[in-house]
Amino acid sequence: MSDDLRWMQVALTLGRRGLGQSWPNPAVGCVLVAPNGRVVGRGRTQSGGRPHAEVVALAQAGAAARGATAYVTLEPCAHHGQTGPCCDALIAAGVGRVVTALEDPDPRVAGQGHSRLRAAGVAVTEGVGRAAAREDQLGFLNRVTLGRPMVTLKLALTLDGRIATARGESQWITGAEARRYGHALRARHDAVLIGAGTARTDDPTLTVRGVGVVRQPVRVVASRDLDVPIPSRLSQSVTADAPVWLCHGGEAPAERIARARAAGLKCVEVAAEAEGVSVESLLRTLAQRGLTRVYCEGGGAFAAGLLRAGCVDRLAVFSAGCVIGADGLPGLGDLGVNLLADAPRFRRLGVRQVGGDVLTEWART
Amino acid sequence: MSDDLRWMQVALTLGRRGLGQSWPNPAVGCVLVAPNGRVVGRGRTQSGGRPHAEVVALAQAGAAARGATAYVTLEPCAHHGQTGPCCDALIAAGVGRVVTALEDPDPRVAGQGHSRLRAAGVAVTEGVGRAAAREDQLGFLNRVTLGRPMVTLKLALTLDGRIATARGESQWITGAEARRYGHALRARHDAVLIGAGTARTDDPTLTVRGVGVVRQPVRVVASRDLDVPIPSRLSQSVTADAPVWLCHGGEAPAERIARARAAGLKCVEVAAEAEGVSVESLLRTLAQRGLTRVYCEGGGAFAAGLLRAGCVDRLAVFSAGCVIGADGLPGLGDLGVNLLADAPRFRRLGVRQVGGDVLTEWART
Repeated sequence: MSDDLRWMQVALTLGRRGLGQSWPNPAVGCVLVAPNGRVVGRGRTQSGGRPHAEVVALAQAGAAARGATAYVTLEPCAHHGQTGPCCDALIAAGVGRVVTALEDPDPRVAGQGHSRLRAAGVAVTEGVGRAAAREDQLGFLNRVTLGRPMVTLKLALTLDGRIATARGESQWITGAEARRYGHALRARHDAVLIGAGTARTDDPTLTVRGVGVVRQPVRVVASRDLDVPIPSRLSQSVTADAPVWLCHGGEAPAERIARARAAGLKCVEVAAEAEGVSVESLLRTLAQRGLTRVYCEGGGAFAAGLLRAGCVDRLAVFSAGCVIGADGLPGLGDLGVNLLADAPRFRRLGVRQVGGDVLTEWART
Repeated sequence: MSDDLRWMQVALTLGRRGLGQSWPNPAVGCVLVAPNGRVVGRGRTQSGGRPHAEVVALAQAGAAARGATAYVTLEPCAHHGQTGPCCDALIAAGVGRVVTALEDPDPRVAGQGHSRLRAAGVAVTEGVGRAAAREDQLGFLNRVTLGRPMVTLKLALTLDGRIATARGESQWITGAEARRYGHALRARHDAVLIGAGTARTDDPTLTVRGVGVVRQPVRVVASRDLDVPIPSRLSQSVTADAPVWLCHGGEAPAERIARARAAGLKCVEVAAEAEGVSVESLLRTLAQRGLTRVYCEGGGAFAAGLLRAGCVDRLAVFSAGCVIGADGLPGLGDLGVNLLADAPRFRRLGVRQVGGDVLTEWART
């Protein structure tokens, strides 16, 4: 493995810590390495998206940045946002070379960061660690290029794909370790999304607990008619740092909206369809509001809608060592798949034993 | 790890090669180690169950067996069957010490092998590698102590537990590697068992192909009314070495029995119930006929019957990276589980990536 790739992996590891924390900005990592091979600065995009990784690393390095190589997991920005462009900061600090993993598809950047660096006499190497960076940045890339966040669908199922008995008993299918791991997965996302049925049936809290998280994911409930109970664990746990968004259709009763607002929930109107809110409109709205990584925790019918719309990018499947049978509740609703060739297919990313359960992770092919 | 345990593991590995081959006898392994630490003989129970492992190893060792230690995965037999007792053969060969993993629960042995050896002045150490031996011998132990074979239920499912689309398209859910691995699992069992529905729908062959097997598993179809198509791939592939047994109820029409017999299929009467053949009677009959390890490949309703009867000892679940949705065909029928506490629970034995799929193996708790 080349030195460049090794340093980039350090930067990628650093950047990854910002997943779920840095939205609406991408979770970038930056490592500054002096010509003698010593690390003189490290940084990642901070919670809330600022300062950017490069600025953090440059501040740490001070004068030692002069002549150093900057390993950045995404092309440094070239536009004036709330702070000056990072490429200008790298130039001003006298960095000798910049190595990046990925070009920033944001039209305000889109290669201009790289070209501005080169124009200033800084050597630039692109595409080091690109595949890993693409995976880490999938939420940001989807938001910029598709106008929707990346969606991870979590399923916690018996071996035969059930989530509850015929009577509805569901606690607990998976073990305590898997549920804790589920909190860690939540924490790596900007938002946790459920349908109204799950809000009514499970009365979940959906916060991240027990894994030392800084920024809570936004909790999003999709309910065309805003048919969710209030008060609920969701409404009672609303704080400025742990908001709940209710995404509803235009026909949702005004008194329900008023009641939700009074309880501190944020009501967001999206387009509606016969079966519920429009998945496309919902996700577009979430992206417009800055969300890049969304973790869907059901229910089965709502998840099926995401799959039918082709909007599930990653699957996280917890499999518990038990069976309930066909008279139990399925973890996924109807998909209307007649031909196997039309079934949504996923490529295996990894397999992990979590307590007594098994977690498999998959990427949409 | 002690030397004893290390040598026992060699014997266990050897014995395991006989799984699926040695029925009605247990698949035993034996290693003879001279006092200088050299292996002077190895053996496993041969295909068909004879000669026994000890006899094979002693024949290989010849005079070198004198003073050697015999590592045997099961207590040597003490009764006269078609050959003389193995404990007598070990004594006659002058073996100095015998190390075993497991007492033989067969009432004709049940400690008499060990005591006969001790009475002859042979040092005996018992219980070395017992847990692994119990796992390997589960079929034999079940047959002797429960009067039924060990049952492995194979499920090849989408991530949401389906085996076919609503229209019935099922080929292929899993990839070629998983299907080949499935043949290797078949080969480690004495019989492959399916219900009549699968025989009608899939017209399967059920032989072991492509993994260099010596003895084909018996193919068993359970059909209360003997309602299976003839000719079929099953009937057309019957040979003396690859038999098919049709297990039917007492009310099965005589002309169907006659037709099946004419096609070379063996018809075996078992008790019947409203839903089909009696699982208990079926398994008891298979055990009486010598089968120790049965590999069930469906269908879903038949497999559910095995689970309801508490007769599934091991699960082998192949998970393919696709979803079909709740309108697809479930891999498992109704279990009538109302309380989660009543759901059949399994302990994870292992996880393996097979091609693009994932195989998880589970043991009934």
